[in-house]
Amino acid sequence: MKAEIISVGTELLLGSTINTDAADVAVLLSEYGINVYWHTVVGDNPGRVAEAVRRARGRADLIITTGGLGPTCDDLTKNALAEGFGMSLELNEGEERWLRGIWAERGYAAFTPNNLQQVMLPEGSTPLRNDWGTAPGCYFERDGVCVIMLPGPPGELRPMLEHRVRPILDKLSDGIIASHNIHFFGIGESEMEYRLRDYMEQLTNPTLAPYAKQGECLVRVTAKAPTAEAAEEMMRPVIERVLAEFGDLAYAVDGANLAEYTVKLLIERRVTLACAESCTGGELQKRITDIPGASAALLGGAVVYTNGAKNRILGVPAGLIEEKGAVSREVAEELAVRVREKLGADLGVGITGLAGPDGDGVHEVGTVFISLADGKTVYVREKHITGRSRSNVRLYSCQNALDMIRRYLNGLPVEEGRRDI
Amino acid sequence: MKAEIISVGTELLLGSTINTDAADVAVLLSEYGINVYWHTVVGDNPGRVAEAVRRARGRADLIITTGGLGPTCDDLTKNALAEGFGMSLELNEGEERWLRGIWAERGYAAFTPNNLQQVMLPEGSTPLRNDWGTAPGCYFERDGVCVIMLPGPPGELRPMLEHRVRPILDKLSDGIIASHNIHFFGIGESEMEYRLRDYMEQLTNPTLAPYAKQGECLVRVTAKAPTAEAAEEMMRPVIERVLAEFGDLAYAVDGANLAEYTVKLLIERRVTLACAESCTGGELQKRITDIPGASAALLGGAVVYTNGAKNRILGVPAGLIEEKGAVSREVAEELAVRVREKLGADLGVGITGLAGPDGDGVHEVGTVFISLADGKTVYVREKHITGRSRSNVRLYSCQNALDMIRRYLNGLPVEEGRRDI
Repeated sequence: MKAEIISVGTELLLGSTINTDAADVAVLLSEYGINVYWHTVVGDNPGRVAEAVRRARGRADLIITTGGLGPTCDDLTKNALAEGFGMSLELNEGEERWLRGIWAERGYAAFTPNNLQQVMLPEGSTPLRNDWGTAPGCYFERDGVCVIMLPGPPGELRPMLEHRVRPILDKLSDGIIASHNIHFFGIGESEMEYRLRDYMEQLTNPTLAPYAKQGECLVRVTAKAPTAEAAEEMMRPVIERVLAEFGDLAYAVDGANLAEYTVKLLIERRVTLACAESCTGGELQKRITDIPGASAALLGGAVVYTNGAKNRILGVPAGLIEEKGAVSREVAEELAVRVREKLGADLGVGITGLAGPDGDGVHEVGTVFISLADGKTVYVREKHITGRSRSNVRLYSCQNALDMIRRYLNGLPVEEGRRDI
Repeated sequence: MKAEIISVGTELLLGSTINTDAADVAVLLSEYGINVYWHTVVGDNPGRVAEAVRRARGRADLIITTGGLGPTCDDLTKNALAEGFGMSLELNEGEERWLRGIWAERGYAAFTPNNLQQVMLPEGSTPLRNDWGTAPGCYFERDGVCVIMLPGPPGELRPMLEHRVRPILDKLSDGIIASHNIHFFGIGESEMEYRLRDYMEQLTNPTLAPYAKQGECLVRVTAKAPTAEAAEEMMRPVIERVLAEFGDLAYAVDGANLAEYTVKLLIERRVTLACAESCTGGELQKRITDIPGASAALLGGAVVYTNGAKNRILGVPAGLIEEKGAVSREVAEELAVRVREKLGADLGVGITGLAGPDGDGVHEVGTVFISLADGKTVYVREKHITGRSRSNVRLYSCQNALDMIRRYLNGLPVEEGRRDI
C-alpha cells in the first residue's frame, strides 16, 4: 500500500509553522508498513490543493490530508478533495447536533453560521469525531483510493491519529514495519557507512541506514513483516553482525543518546557523579540534568571557567596551574580527583581545554583533557578536536566524558592514560 | 519570483526527522518577498527526486533543495538535479582540495573514496563552501531557473542560508531588502502580535512580523528599497514606534539573543559574574560560555543540584535548607550571595526551582526563584513557569537570570523583591 500526505496551510509555506503533522502521520503509517513516497505542502489555495489531490490520486492508494478543516474562509480542504473526486459536500446532521451541543456545553458565544462549514462533509463519507477541537475529520473510499482528512493543530491531530485513524489502518494494512537503532560513539557516519556499504547493498529487507546525530551516530535496521515477531526475527542477525563489526564503539541498541544512556546506567548502578568543567562551562552537567531524575546520579559540581575559580572552588594549587598550564593532563587529574572529594561522589569527572575560536599561544584550539577518577585511579583522555567550531569542541568534550563513564561502568577499557592515586 | 522547496531524505518521509529545513528556507524566502507555493518531501530515491525536479521546473523560477549531499550512497540529490537539467556531474577540484585539507587539519582517519562524492557538482555550477560540515552546496542557473542545493543537517543549513544563500538572493531580487530585529524578553509572541496587529495591518513596506525564539521573541522590521540608505530611512519611524510601545521589554535592536547581549554588556562594563545553579544544572553557565570571550565576564560557579552540593560547595547551612526548603526565596538569596563571595565576583546569580516533570509534594512544577546579588543588595524574582516542559522551565529560568543582569547593568528596575545585605 502506498500513501501520500498533503498538508494544507499558508503558515506552513511561509515557514512560520513547522510541519510536525506530516511527521506524526508518517510515523504512524510506517508502523503499519505503509510506504509513504511523497509529502506535499500547499497553501490555502483551492487550485493548488486540487492539483495536489489530482497528483496524489494517480500515485497513491491512501491520501491523508492535514489542515484546512476549520470554520474560516481559508479552510477549503474538504471542498478541494470533494471536487478532486467528483463529489459534493453535504451537511452531516449527526456532527451538526454534536457541534451545537459543544457550544451549549462550553458556554461559547453565539453559534455563528460559518461554524456549519465544519460539518459539511463529502457525500457518503464517514465523519471522524474530533473530541479535541471543533472540526471533525472524515474518511471515504472512492475509485480504489482511501482518503482521510484530519485537522491541522497538532493537539487535535495527535489524538485523532491514535483514536480515529489507527482503527482504520488496522483494517487496511497487511503487515508491519519495525526498526531498531544501534548507537555509536567514537566513529563518524562516513567511516561507518564505508565499512558497511557492501553489506548494506546486499540487504533489501531488513535494510540498514546510517544517521549522524549530535556528536554521535547511529545505524537504523528496519524490517517489514507480517507480524512484529517475524520482523524481530529478521532483524536479529543483522543487528548481531553490525555489533560484531564495531565492537565496543556501539554503546546501545535503541534508547535516546549517549547522555541518556549514561545517566540511566549511573542510576541503575547507584553510582554518583560530580563534575568540574572548565572549557565546557557547564554543558556536561546541563546535558546530564536535561534528563529527569538525574539528581540520583549527579550530585553537582563546579564550573571552573577561570584559573581563579579552579583554585577558589576546588583548591587546585595556583602553582600547579602556573607550572603546567590550565590546559594540561595534571590539572585535568586534579579537577576529577578534587571535585569527587568535594562532593563525596563515587566518580569525579574533569574537563579542561581550549574551545576556541581564539588560541592561548601554547595549544592548538581543540586540545582538551578529559579525566575520570574513582577512589583509586584517575584516567585522562587527551583529544585534539581540531578544525571544529567552538560549540563542536565543547559538545565532543562532553561526549568523551560520557563515553569514559559508560566504559568505566561497563568494565571496558576506559583509557590508556591512567595513574593510581 | 516563484520558488519551490524540495527536501530529500527518507528519514523525513518516515517522520523520524521533522522537516525544519523547509521552514527555515521559507522564512528566508519570504523575507525577500519571494512567493513559495509548494514544499515537497521525497525519499532517497533517484526516480522520485527527478520527478519532483521536473514538476518544480515547470512551476518555479527558483528551486531550493535540502538534503542528500553527503558521502553515502543514499545521497543522490545532485545526480537527480543534474539529470533533471540535462547536466553531468564533475569533480570540483577547489572543493576537493578544501575537503582533503579538512581531513588533514582535523586529523580524521583515512580519506575514504566515498567522500569525493561530496565534491562532484553539476557542470559549471558554483560551489557553496560548507564551513559547518563537509558537503558543499552548489548553485546554478539553467534555462531561466535558478537552483540552490543545500545540506540537510539544520546545523549546516542555517549558517549556509545566512552566509551563502542570502548573497545570492540579494542579487536575484530587484532592489535590496534590509531588516532589523527588535529583541524582547518578558512578553509572549501572541501578546506582542495582538498589541501590534492594527499597526502591522496598515504597513505594507516596511513590514513588521513577530517571531518566537528560544525563550524570547522578536519583531522583524523589513523594508524593500532601491538603496540601503533608503531602506534605513523607511524603517526608522517604525522601529521608534515599536520601542515606544513596549518600553524596557525591548532589550536590543539587532544582535543575537539575550545571552549574547548580556555577556557583551558584562564585558563592556568590566563586571564579573559567578553563578550557582540548582534546577538549571549548568545551563545558564553553558549558555554564557557558548559565547567566545565569556571568560572576561563569567569567573565560574557551581552546579548545586542536590542539597548536599549546596552545602558542600557553597556552605549554604543545611538547617536553612531544611527549614525553608531548597526551592525558596531564602535559599536563592544564599546562592547568589555566597557564590559571589566564593569567586570574588562583582555579581552573583542563583537559581533554585522545580523543573519537573515530577513534583516535590510542596511546590507546583515550574516554581523557580532567581536571585542577583551585588555587595549591597540581593534581588529575588519568583516565577511560576507552569504548564511547560522541563526544558522550557529551565530555559525560562536562565532567561530570567540574564534579564535581571541586563536590567541591573542598564540601571532599570531589577525586581521588586529585594533586600539589603
